[in-house]
Amino acid sequence: MAIRHIALFRWRDDVTPEGVSRVQELLAALPSAIPELRAYSFGPDAGISDGAFDFAVVADVEDEAGFAAYRDHPEHQAALGVIRPMLADRAAIQYPIAGTE
Amino acid sequence: MAIRHIALFRWRDDVTPEGVSRVQELLAALPSAIPELRAYSFGPDAGISDGAFDFAVVADVEDEAGFAAYRDHPEHQAALGVIRPMLADRAAIQYPIAGTE
Repeated sequence: MAIRHIALFRWRDDVTPEGVSRVQELLAALPSAIPELRAYSFGPDAGISDGAFDFAVVADVEDEAGFAAYRDHPEHQAALGVIRPMLADRAAIQYPIAGTE
Repeated sequence: MAIRHIALFRWRDDVTPEGVSRVQELLAALPSAIPELRAYSFGPDAGISDGAFDFAVVADVEDEAGFAAYRDHPEHQAALGVIRPMLADRAAIQYPIAGTE
């Protein structure tokens, strides 16, 4: 059973567009660095709904070992080191999906 | 630009496994009822990470009109009527994706 990891971020008030662009650059480098990522997408809220979080990251992996490989990869950890100080709130889940969709 | 809608739920303490099964039945009926859904997945947290939300729903649609069709569809609204009283917390976002992945 494949696993989809979702992380939603709400930025602190002092986060700048340049800061978010830097996050996007770091995340964009991960699929080529982490072969366990079968599908990977991320991006800012589209502004459709009130109360939405600010940014989403979705990673599809083959299994729990694949998720651990992503979570613990040095480049991912480096990105988290940039992201964590920017966070006002975070919501996450890993749930089973039928395949890497 | 396609849109991915994500909703994460945290259940109230009094929510039962039967209640969650009922939610899954209602959600499972939506893809055949709502043609605007290009991809749809949902499920309970896999229990891998501390602090995770309890349940995820992810809907990929072609555009904002597709999202509105899903959001406002009577069968989706009926499912929300069952889900809302079960919620302790909810996190959501709609973000652009390159295509329906």
